[in-house]
Amino acid sequence: MANKDYTFKDLTPYLDKYMALQTAISIMDWDDSTAAPEEASEYTSKMLGILSQEQFMTLINPQVKEMIEQFDEEQLSLTEKAVLKRIRKEYEKSEAIPAKEKREYTELTSRAFNIWQKAKKENDFSVYAPYLKKVIAFRKKFAGYSQKEDAKLYDILLEEYEESFRMKELDRFFAKLKEEIIPLLKKIEQAEEIDDSFFYLDYDIEKQKEFNRYIAEYMGFDFKRGLIAESEHPFTTNWHNHDVRITTRYYKDNLPSAILSTIHECGHALYEQGVRDELTQTLVGEGASCAMHESQSRFYENIIGRSEAFWEPLYPKLVELFPEQLGNISLQQFVRALNKVKADLIRTEADELTYCLHIMVRYELEKQMIEENIAVDELPELWNQKYAEYLGVSPENDSEGILQDVHWSMGDIGYFPSYALGNAFAAQIYNTMKKELDVDKLLREGRISEITAYLRKHIHQYGASKEPRELLKELTGEEFNPDYYIQYLKEKFEQVYGL
Amino acid sequence: MANKDYTFKDLTPYLDKYMALQTAISIMDWDDSTAAPEEASEYTSKMLGILSQEQFMTLINPQVKEMIEQFDEEQLSLTEKAVLKRIRKEYEKSEAIPAKEKREYTELTSRAFNIWQKAKKENDFSVYAPYLKKVIAFRKKFAGYSQKEDAKLYDILLEEYEESFRMKELDRFFAKLKEEIIPLLKKIEQAEEIDDSFFYLDYDIEKQKEFNRYIAEYMGFDFKRGLIAESEHPFTTNWHNHDVRITTRYYKDNLPSAILSTIHECGHALYEQGVRDELTQTLVGEGASCAMHESQSRFYENIIGRSEAFWEPLYPKLVELFPEQLGNISLQQFVRALNKVKADLIRTEADELTYCLHIMVRYELEKQMIEENIAVDELPELWNQKYAEYLGVSPENDSEGILQDVHWSMGDIGYFPSYALGNAFAAQIYNTMKKELDVDKLLREGRISEITAYLRKHIHQYGASKEPRELLKELTGEEFNPDYYIQYLKEKFEQVYGL
Repeated sequence: MANKDYTFKDLTPYLDKYMALQTAISIMDWDDSTAAPEEASEYTSKMLGILSQEQFMTLINPQVKEMIEQFDEEQLSLTEKAVLKRIRKEYEKSEAIPAKEKREYTELTSRAFNIWQKAKKENDFSVYAPYLKKVIAFRKKFAGYSQKEDAKLYDILLEEYEESFRMKELDRFFAKLKEEIIPLLKKIEQAEEIDDSFFYLDYDIEKQKEFNRYIAEYMGFDFKRGLIAESEHPFTTNWHNHDVRITTRYYKDNLPSAILSTIHECGHALYEQGVRDELTQTLVGEGASCAMHESQSRFYENIIGRSEAFWEPLYPKLVELFPEQLGNISLQQFVRALNKVKADLIRTEADELTYCLHIMVRYELEKQMIEENIAVDELPELWNQKYAEYLGVSPENDSEGILQDVHWSMGDIGYFPSYALGNAFAAQIYNTMKKELDVDKLLREGRISEITAYLRKHIHQYGASKEPRELLKELTGEEFNPDYYIQYLKEKFEQVYGL
Repeated sequence: MANKDYTFKDLTPYLDKYMALQTAISIMDWDDSTAAPEEASEYTSKMLGILSQEQFMTLINPQVKEMIEQFDEEQLSLTEKAVLKRIRKEYEKSEAIPAKEKREYTELTSRAFNIWQKAKKENDFSVYAPYLKKVIAFRKKFAGYSQKEDAKLYDILLEEYEESFRMKELDRFFAKLKEEIIPLLKKIEQAEEIDDSFFYLDYDIEKQKEFNRYIAEYMGFDFKRGLIAESEHPFTTNWHNHDVRITTRYYKDNLPSAILSTIHECGHALYEQGVRDELTQTLVGEGASCAMHESQSRFYENIIGRSEAFWEPLYPKLVELFPEQLGNISLQQFVRALNKVKADLIRTEADELTYCLHIMVRYELEKQMIEENIAVDELPELWNQKYAEYLGVSPENDSEGILQDVHWSMGDIGYFPSYALGNAFAAQIYNTMKKELDVDKLLREGRISEITAYLRKHIHQYGASKEPRELLKELTGEEFNPDYYIQYLKEKFEQVYGL
């Protein structure tokens, strides 16, 4: 057969197998996090390793390579083009790095992860430092292999997670954040503290579960195509648009923790349940990117989920379940408490306002690691300085400082900024949405489904068949613009604190 | 490379991949039965189909074929020989049947299964009959492809499920059963009926769960290497000896249902948890056969689980949980009720004594289907006649008659006898065990672990590295002998009914 004879259809068996293995691996991961017995993991993970390798080789092999080099792009549909783009990206990543180095790196990150766990537990950065040093060296080396003329090393890493978002744009974003949000935070800290003590009374777990299910149903999470389970760290997973699962963790003495995490994960889940049927089970059948996914989860969690309008139809049900704890708390008090700002040490527990400052610390350190050859030993001190400067708090030890996040141990340098981008995307989308929908009124009337329908129409249905930048531009009519986010934060928190 | 250079090690990547896919498929099946949302199945099963095909081709392909044809068996370990035997069996099965016919058959059974569901629901054998006819024709044709000189067609089918067990042996077994058990049943039906009405009061499901977990722990089910979930039909599954899962179904108005099914599934699970580490995740890392597996589950459920000695240390806990329902019921009354005999229509609800008579009906009909060309349309009438003759009951319709079981629709003709063999294996093993262990005393003293240790030593640890016949001979010192089973039943039920 002449090479030119290949059509996209010839790829189908490879893509099907790739997706089937993906599904299997996801289900096994899900099972491991939510159900598997204590001693199973060692044995099951051996099988997982074999399947992952098999999945990789399904796409990266001489037959597929020959096909994708010969395709006549003119003949492809938009979705096929998007799929092809994904495959080519995988090839670029895989071909740039010599197999031997990739193996070394995989072993390194696997060990680094274990060492990080130990270091965090024992509060000892020094045992972790040599591994982090090696991880950084590998990441720089690998980035060097695919370096393009106009990109710096850290740009290459950033683009691995969020296509076309580089330092130039992020520098501007974080500079504005620094300029506007740090002074705002200082003002808030002078203002009267919000009372949220009623969140931390005794809340029966079964009743919490009932309410979380109620809220997920209200948000439009389709239980015929998904479920809620429990796990140590909440997450969302999906194997196609008809099976999307979220987890929550319940605390007896913390009411908002499970609620906000359910709303957050439902944001992810609505995205995945909203992908069009034709796209699901293809390489572009999932959310467009980390940042776009976070934009949806954070839109629901923060912009919607901490608003008075959202809670107006829901709060009576919550009070009904917990009359002793909330009977004397008004809707306004409840929502105000949900928006309490308190600069603190741990990113994952941060409030809406300070969250991006935590990301900023990490962004600045990553830049220094990759672009400025900073010594790894200096990182803890730098971390602490930045926390003191931006957030006004000082870790007492590295476990609540630089050792708090798993990401770097796994080689994920360049990932954190997508959390911040997610927030900014959400605010930009919200700004446009408000021109078309009376969001406040819809929420007060319990019509959240119309908001979700809007997001489904403009974002969810496309999965990853369009790039985040493209989705944003088509919906908002302009390029990425972080100003909306900063403006949103200022307006909201000035109002919450009566500044 | 010269062919002769192949060593068993060259097979490893193929076997690893095969087992990894097996694990993935089992986990996906498990998830589907215990957790998956309503609409997921259609999408997930597409992926399952791809993985199953991939798994099949991992073993059945030219490279593996070349290897296994060239192995020098002298050089292989016992386990390797057992693995090789399994692979060769797969080849025989797969090579005997033309690919086109196999595809047709797969499609047929998939449709026949759906039609069976419909027919059962609508109580209409006539819509199912043409499919069953085709299934039978295919099974006969396929059996013909691998026919050996000394075997009849139905022998070939029987051997698919239970190696080396043929009609000759089974005819003798069922003849004795007929001769001894049917008269015994008639006598029992003249005796005073046992009162078991207290089983069907209101039993709180949460308390039932607590007791079922308690009983599983007592039996030695290792919760670090397994778990209990719920599903419509109870079953056991395992992906290696460190992850073995059982399901139970709870009924508010039926106390023994969940308890006996937990004991039964724990019997399967103890077998799988007891397989040696070196064997797990190999082709011979699971129980030796259906019948051997059933021998373990039925040993625990019937021989042990319905005995007074077993319940002596456990019953007080059950009474403590349900004082209103059981406070006035003595241990003896409770155990007697567990052994109530009542000939009835449905196999899966049958008591210990009549169970094998249900199997006998199916065995005789299967023989007629395969060896005597009986018309499919005559089967319902024959079914009903046999039930009347052996069990003294008459189905009012085909749903509670010939349509009750799924097996034939899926092509499983020749499978039922392994249930009966399982019972017979159990009794033969028990007969030997009693010579070495004071089973009654051990149970009364709560030392069930010593009984399980005995089975682990003689059966469980070997997985499928030995054939059932071999295990039986090594343990009991003699060939398969169904007399022990018949004798056990007679002694037990004559005593229960004071005959």
